[in-house]
Amino acid sequence: MESLNSKIIRPTLLLDKAKCISNIENMIAKAQRANARLRPHFKTHQSAQIGDWFKERGVEAIAVSSMVMAQYFADNGWKDITVAIPVNLREIELINELASKIQLNLVLESREAIAYLESELEHPVGIFIKVDTGYQRSGIPAEAIGSLRLLVDLMKETEKLNCKGFLAHTGHNYKADDHEQIHKNHSKTLLDLNELKDVFRKDITGLEVSLGDTPACSISEEFYGIDEIRPGNFVFYDIMQYVLGACDESQIAVAMACPVIAKNIDRNELVIHGGGVHFSKEYLEADDEGTKLFGSIVRIAENGWSEILGGGFLASLSQEHGIIRCSDALFDEFTIGDLIGVLPVHSCLTTNLMRKLMTTEGEWITTMNS
Amino acid sequence: MESLNSKIIRPTLLLDKAKCISNIENMIAKAQRANARLRPHFKTHQSAQIGDWFKERGVEAIAVSSMVMAQYFADNGWKDITVAIPVNLREIELINELASKIQLNLVLESREAIAYLESELEHPVGIFIKVDTGYQRSGIPAEAIGSLRLLVDLMKETEKLNCKGFLAHTGHNYKADDHEQIHKNHSKTLLDLNELKDVFRKDITGLEVSLGDTPACSISEEFYGIDEIRPGNFVFYDIMQYVLGACDESQIAVAMACPVIAKNIDRNELVIHGGGVHFSKEYLEADDEGTKLFGSIVRIAENGWSEILGGGFLASLSQEHGIIRCSDALFDEFTIGDLIGVLPVHSCLTTNLMRKLMTTEGEWITTMNS
Repeated sequence: MESLNSKIIRPTLLLDKAKCISNIENMIAKAQRANARLRPHFKTHQSAQIGDWFKERGVEAIAVSSMVMAQYFADNGWKDITVAIPVNLREIELINELASKIQLNLVLESREAIAYLESELEHPVGIFIKVDTGYQRSGIPAEAIGSLRLLVDLMKETEKLNCKGFLAHTGHNYKADDHEQIHKNHSKTLLDLNELKDVFRKDITGLEVSLGDTPACSISEEFYGIDEIRPGNFVFYDIMQYVLGACDESQIAVAMACPVIAKNIDRNELVIHGGGVHFSKEYLEADDEGTKLFGSIVRIAENGWSEILGGGFLASLSQEHGIIRCSDALFDEFTIGDLIGVLPVHSCLTTNLMRKLMTTEGEWITTMNS
Repeated sequence: MESLNSKIIRPTLLLDKAKCISNIENMIAKAQRANARLRPHFKTHQSAQIGDWFKERGVEAIAVSSMVMAQYFADNGWKDITVAIPVNLREIELINELASKIQLNLVLESREAIAYLESELEHPVGIFIKVDTGYQRSGIPAEAIGSLRLLVDLMKETEKLNCKGFLAHTGHNYKADDHEQIHKNHSKTLLDLNELKDVFRKDITGLEVSLGDTPACSISEEFYGIDEIRPGNFVFYDIMQYVLGACDESQIAVAMACPVIAKNIDRNELVIHGGGVHFSKEYLEADDEGTKLFGSIVRIAENGWSEILGGGFLASLSQEHGIIRCSDALFDEFTIGDLIGVLPVHSCLTTNLMRKLMTTEGEWITTMNS
């Protein structure tokens, strides 16, 4: 069999399918234990093929981050889709098209959105009110019961807005210092959503609450009162999740394979073909001096990749170049023309840029942008 | 005529063609004054249509940042292309294909690359040796005459490697504090390249030296001894160039138009549909406290956009959301469903992600990734 090494010509996003399937099955099992629906967020992989691996295991409902992504997955057979971002009212035409075909759920947080949708919708949609449990990106603060009640009451008077409940995203977990902080943030979200269930139980028939972030869904076993979890990144994981302790190194299911195009012996640096247009410019701070880390280094093996190699990291990115800062040993190991592997900091953004993946068996997986 | 506002449904990269053409014509005029060939770097726009605007004005030679981009522009009629990144030896098949059709110039900095190419090339190619004049990304230090001579001498013995000269990129100009620093960096590159011309004049017939970065090519009028300039970003410019003083605000030829999807009155924040998958995660530091700026705010007008609005900036990005931090006045000006304009920090990465542009006349411009 032709080895991976000989198939890779330029920066290539490798996918270890076995790790990915295992990540999917672990999260399905976790949702079952929590007695919650798993509505995986498909913004990470954006791939109908990978979506099928969920479908084959019984998953029927998904979340996406744009209407265009909803359209792609609807075209690929998904019938229950939540667009988990405050609705973009300018997309009313596509909203109406999809609402005529599938169970489409939208997210909103304003009277303006309710009024516009009630006026322009041609078919019923499910609505989740976005609540903010501490992330401070979007949503009405979970404590602002009066503001929430206003929206709930407004929707009672509509014909096509079927208010289903509340949706939160504990996004501040991505900035957490440790597990304790993640548990604390998560507990706050649990408390908030359960409080909202109590308060609005009589107002909303079949009221559901939904939360979703990969750190808490990976680390916690506590989801009391939660009807639905919406993690996304867990399908691949990445160095950010690894540093947060949300996954083991062995669970990271994607790695970039990049050709070494130059070496600088004075600075112990390997130059790779692989830059901001491949990885994205997402980084982690590697130390207190603000050293940036854009990825961790692995060796590309016959059918996958090694553990993380000490003594080197992806230290800077320009549009097409990457610079790997190395120990002497690592520097000497690689020659111009060799492949080197990099575990990305943020697999969602890297996959979005790469637009297709090669499995470690050498097969191409397409995405909505392929 | 239908206004821009009514045509824009989701995050859209607007192009002001008149500004873009003016940027192109200014740089052509600058190269003529400097008596240097303009070999514009097409990695910024990646568009055959925009490439034609150069061709119509007499430009015949271009630079690109990958072999795939070289292939795209060769397919679109360009006959003289420099791939301005150390050659990725794994792409030998595509190199041979293009070298059979066009004047293909490669960049290298190692004996390994010379040996491999001489063994595998089927057609002659031009070679530029990458020299480092202070950027410390790739290239042989311009002072390391011995190392450079080794490569020049090695190429004399090859049949298919036609050594044409030296290529430098003053990339550290992007990190410059002020014009003085840019002039200083640029002067060092000029001195280095002229020194190399003197040293190697007898070794390389028709020796050429090439430099290229938008800051120096925009600010300086001094290019003595330089045969070729390769700026790229100037075609659009962006907030990074504006902050460097490489362009006026009125020269920035692209703006993102993003729908407002939520408002938070407690924090004076507008939430837009427009995130890391649209802008890239490139940022500037807005102050000494490390406040990040991902873009500057403008008003979308009937056929273009306004000057930069004070009192607001794009302060954070997640995958699909952006947060604009506002003054009271700016906050009150925008309603959910409105469009807001954002001048991107780095137009190359934004264009790469957006993959197509809409002119302010409402026509779509495609790129190699459309």
